Amino acid sequence: MHPEGSVLVEFGNTRVLCTASVTEGVPRWRKGSGLGWLTAEYAMLPRATTTRNDRESVKGKIGGRTHEISRLIGRSLRACIDLKALGENSIVLDCDVLQADGGTRTAAITGAYVALADAVGFLAANKKLAGKPAQVLHRSVAAVSVGIIAGEPRLDLCYEEDVIADVDMNVVCTGTGDFVEVQGTGEQAVFSRAELDLLVDLGALGCAELTALQQKAIAG
Amino acid sequence: MHPEGSVLVEFGNTRVLCTASVTEGVPRWRKGSGLGWLTAEYAMLPRATTTRNDRESVKGKIGGRTHEISRLIGRSLRACIDLKALGENSIVLDCDVLQADGGTRTAAITGAYVALADAVGFLAANKKLAGKPAQVLHRSVAAVSVGIIAGEPRLDLCYEEDVIADVDMNVVCTGTGDFVEVQGTGEQAVFSRAELDLLVDLGALGCAELTALQQKAIAG
Amino acid sequence: MHPEGSVLVEFGNTRVLCTASVTEGVPRWRKGSGLGWLTAEYAMLPRATTTRNDRESVKGKIGGRTHEISRLIGRSLRACIDLKALGENSIVLDCDVLQADGGTRTAAITGAYVALADAVGFLAANKKLAGKPAQVLHRSVAAVSVGIIAGEPRLDLCYEEDVIADVDMNVVCTGTGDFVEVQGTGEQAVFSRAELDLLVDLGALGCAELTALQQKAIAG
Amino acid sequence: MHPEGSVLVEFGNTRVLCTASVTEGVPRWRKGSGLGWLTAEYAMLPRATTTRNDRESVKGKIGGRTHEISRLIGRSLRACIDLKALGENSIVLDCDVLQADGGTRTAAITGAYVALADAVGFLAANKKLAGKPAQVLHRSVAAVSVGIIAGEPRLDLCYEEDVIADVDMNVVCTGTGDFVEVQGTGEQAVFSRAELDLLVDLGALGCAELTALQQKAIAG
Amino acid sequence: MHPEGSVLVEFGNTRVLCTASVTEGVPRWRKGSGLGWLTAEYAMLPRATTTRNDRESVKGKIGGRTHEISRLIGRSLRACIDLKALGENSIVLDCDVLQADGGTRTAAITGAYVALADAVGFLAANKKLAGKPAQVLHRSVAAVSVGIIAGEPRLDLCYEEDVIADVDMNVVCTGTGDFVEVQGTGEQAVFSRAELDLLVDLGALGCAELTALQQKAIAG
Amino acid sequence: MHPEGSVLVEFGNTRVLCTASVTEGVPRWRKGSGLGWLTAEYAMLPRATTTRNDRESVKGKIGGRTHEISRLIGRSLRACIDLKALGENSIVLDCDVLQADGGTRTAAITGAYVALADAVGFLAANKKLAGKPAQVLHRSVAAVSVGIIAGEPRLDLCYEEDVIADVDMNVVCTGTGDFVEVQGTGEQAVFSRAELDLLVDLGALGCAELTALQQKAIAG
Repeated sequence: MHPEGSVLVEFGNTRVLCTASVTEGVPRWRKGSGLGWLTAEYAMLPRATTTRNDRESVKGKIGGRTHEISRLIGRSLRACIDLKALGENSIVLDCDVLQADGGTRTAAITGAYVALADAVGFLAANKKLAGKPAQVLHRSVAAVSVGIIAGEPRLDLCYEEDVIADVDMNVVCTGTGDFVEVQGTGEQAVFSRAELDLLVDLGALGCAELTALQQKAIAG
Repeated sequence: MHPEGSVLVEFGNTRVLCTASVTEGVPRWRKGSGLGWLTAEYAMLPRATTTRNDRESVKGKIGGRTHEISRLIGRSLRACIDLKALGENSIVLDCDVLQADGGTRTAAITGAYVALADAVGFLAANKKLAGKPAQVLHRSVAAVSVGIIAGEPRLDLCYEEDVIADVDMNVVCTGTGDFVEVQGTGEQAVFSRAELDLLVDLGALGCAELTALQQKAIAG
Repeated sequence: MHPEGSVLVEFGNTRVLCTASVTEGVPRWRKGSGLGWLTAEYAMLPRATTTRNDRESVKGKIGGRTHEISRLIGRSLRACIDLKALGENSIVLDCDVLQADGGTRTAAITGAYVALADAVGFLAANKKLAGKPAQVLHRSVAAVSVGIIAGEPRLDLCYEEDVIADVDMNVVCTGTGDFVEVQGTGEQAVFSRAELDLLVDLGALGCAELTALQQKAIAG
Repeated sequence: MHPEGSVLVEFGNTRVLCTASVTEGVPRWRKGSGLGWLTAEYAMLPRATTTRNDRESVKGKIGGRTHEISRLIGRSLRACIDLKALGENSIVLDCDVLQADGGTRTAAITGAYVALADAVGFLAANKKLAGKPAQVLHRSVAAVSVGIIAGEPRLDLCYEEDVIADVDMNVVCTGTGDFVEVQGTGEQAVFSRAELDLLVDLGALGCAELTALQQKAIAG
Repeated sequence: MHPEGSVLVEFGNTRVLCTASVTEGVPRWRKGSGLGWLTAEYAMLPRATTTRNDRESVKGKIGGRTHEISRLIGRSLRACIDLKALGENSIVLDCDVLQADGGTRTAAITGAYVALADAVGFLAANKKLAGKPAQVLHRSVAAVSVGIIAGEPRLDLCYEEDVIADVDMNVVCTGTGDFVEVQGTGEQAVFSRAELDLLVDLGALGCAELTALQQKAIAG
Repeated sequence: MHPEGSVLVEFGNTRVLCTASVTEGVPRWRKGSGLGWLTAEYAMLPRATTTRNDRESVKGKIGGRTHEISRLIGRSLRACIDLKALGENSIVLDCDVLQADGGTRTAAITGAYVALADAVGFLAANKKLAGKPAQVLHRSVAAVSVGIIAGEPRLDLCYEEDVIADVDMNVVCTGTGDFVEVQGTGEQAVFSRAELDLLVDLGALGCAELTALQQKAIAG
């Protein structure tokens, strides 16, 4: 009801509420630069997972995983937006995981893009943008997780698959198929150049499908 | 999907996700007492409100309002449960406000009772209770906010009404019409004995209606 | 010696040092509003109680109980004062419990009112008020705790009584007998409408006696 | 009323409440060592000073000055006590400054010794000591601040003198005139060997006077 | 002098002190599992950079970047070690940047491997390993940063290059040329599949050179 | 490479990296005063000692010992500098212990003086000082630790000696033999007036030697 942009993404059983909050003006140290500001915050509800996690507000500090994912979402979404054309406006993207079953960070990026598009639309409707909407949001961005399980590449791992995957990769692509971020990690095993290629290709394919769904959601 | 008890309460535009998480065993200092443990945590998503609030995890500490409400929910729900009959099990009630439009704390109490009933059912089904389910959950509890606006008592204030109310009261009642907690506050104005009586009566009435809805939800 | 208002309240064995600190000006976000600012902080010395409590400064965070009581004191005292007539001055009320034996929050409110009256007198003497002193402090406020022990209502519970009380209520009244805040809690038991009435009446009576003592203290 | 040892020290206008809290047992890492444990904590009420200081509990961390003084008090008092003869008991000395007018840390040490003597007496009366009381508390300790103002040495500086002093020294002595701690600081100026000698002698003299007062207080 | 493994890595002007600290035993929750434990912490001295950064200890919390890099180092080094063969021993790898000029995280990983090899040697010499040294440290690991500047791929970017790079990638490889982690980020620009291939190949080449240097350092 | 002043001090096996960071301007509350600002921060790398210490950044707070030493370094160095002649410039002295073997705080003070001299030279070369360099840095300062071991006074204790010392004293002197700070502590034992004299004399002697080395380092 309240946010300037808001979307509930579902990837399998994963559910992430992505909202975009717009404020006029930018943080003090950025005033007068003519540039806007975009930042992202990721969090999980305590019982989004199979067993309850203590709240980070209760622990009094944010964990490394939360920090890492918030930074990844922020970087990915800043790749879509021209901060000059945005003008001195600030956008905060909040991605709150209501229910988790693998791929929460990639679901968050994919949903945050839709919320961001809404927010840019809101700013355009209120004539607050420095540039044209198409200049402001000059690219789209979507993300998937891919992995290798028992030697076989798989798209969009659920939690059970994620746990047994040998290699895990997050791929963030633009709507035109370029890469914004590629993060491949071999926790259980290392991976060869050939496996890397397979994962990257599969990730790019998955992002292309999501791009189509995003366009529909925004159009609808 | 994951929690032992889970309910999404809607009071007007207010939406609170209440989950109950069960773990066998109790905190260390309570071991061997034969008593169970029940605690509650309340929080708001940053954009549940008309303007965005900074996350308490980012600020590194929990605010006074959050503390106060978490304590109120915990006290109210502990009034329904016999910790001895519960046995050495722990239940955490998480009440996360997804969208706020007044009355979030009373919605949280009312919903948390339903999630708690689910969790007690879960423990019963798994034969983990020390007593019988009806002994464990020996009362029901529901809550409403009431107020006086322009001299007139009103039930279940939305945000706009809450802001202009002269007096604001939260009433927590059992299913049999007794009081668990009564908190009346005259921020804008003070209130007379007669007004106090009106508010208490209206609150009790509101709780009775909610009790009926809770029974339905649990039965359904 | 130092504060603009200072009083040591004794309720039975409970001893609370209440001071009022005045500064010209208001927090930055309130500048230019023409309104003053009043806030309160409550704390206990570590050995005010029968066993030692760790300091909240050492734990690095303020507990829920402290937050809740500080907020209650602040609300109650803001009910006495016209922030417009106060002008852009800030008053901080510090209530530090030196020795605790039940009823520390109500003792704190009652004492804080006297310290506040001193502080308003100090501001008047220094010609810093926007309005007349009687406009600034347009009401008095006092508070008592009441409870039901073994079925019988009791005024001003000491610690031993508080522990065994079935129902516990804090009543904050103005000097003219209106209510500012009523907080009734049935930790051990629930309470009926008739019990609620008894407690409220007893509380109002207790506040009236304290009002008389406050007037004496201020006059003296 | 509650603590095992408790004394309100007055040095000029400085007032420090010193309490000793006794618990059987020692921190986990010390169990089975046969040694006791003694620690000290120093704090100021927010309005102990001419202008109000923010609470360290509200700031969420303890400042350097508080840490430094707490450590000094702890070291000084550990010099009086034989932790083996104390047995596996813990003593916490809390020194809370109610009103400050210079020399709060030395007043705290001098008062804490008296509270400690009370606490040792309490343990002796309850037959909890491993050794005899005179072995446990084998020395007394007292402390004064001395300074040089306009070239002249002065004992026990009040706040106004402290601010203008060229050199400031805290001297902690045993009842037999030996030194436990000597801390001389030349914030405004440096000091010569001759000045150091003067200050040390004056401090030792001051401590001897305080020792006599302490004996009286304990005897009384 | 003190650590079980210690190395000062120099990559251009970047200098990172990597130490490995060994303790017998593992964290409580891991006891009895037969598995060892390896963790890493990364930090910068405040003036490692061209302008001074505030200490994270003073700010009271660890920033997102520090968290992210500490986690990356930990994951990369855990890929080299068989925790079962290590037995119930804990190793902490500390990577402290004394001087920074680009590539501090990759320098830290490369140096930490050498410190880890020393530490495993120390454990072997003291007969504390569950398996043979070659089983324990069954792989080597090295890391480089690569980037695209003005369309051209570059190895091991210094700070000035890093700032102007369109794409930045960290590549972590084993001594046999497999990948442990690949993190490519297009902050200024996005990157094509062809550019990704170029960067990955260049990174693998750079790691191979570092592997040779590591073997020399360990042998020497 | 980066800091305006930088020196690596070695006292026996103790190694402290001292850097001076210069910024134009002063903290907000000091603006317009015409006075400069000098502050110091001390820290230890986690494995500077024989066993690893947890990072204060990870613990989320600075310990009492760190606070106490940072304050001592700051006071000592402020004794050398005329803040008016410095003009509205800020200098932060960072003393990071890379390897510890006793006397880290006195090594830090002695090294920080040399880094400070470099920084003042840098400011002079850039014509940023309000006064002449010799006015700005009107004194030199050096520090040593002295102690009594088995009845015998010793200069510059290493860690093993420090642990067994009966009395431990830190002496901070100017280049002309006056005292800036004298801190004598009898943790294991108390000390007589005669012992105090011996320690002070030995400390002054040690400082004189260090002054000569400092002059050489600055000249070189």
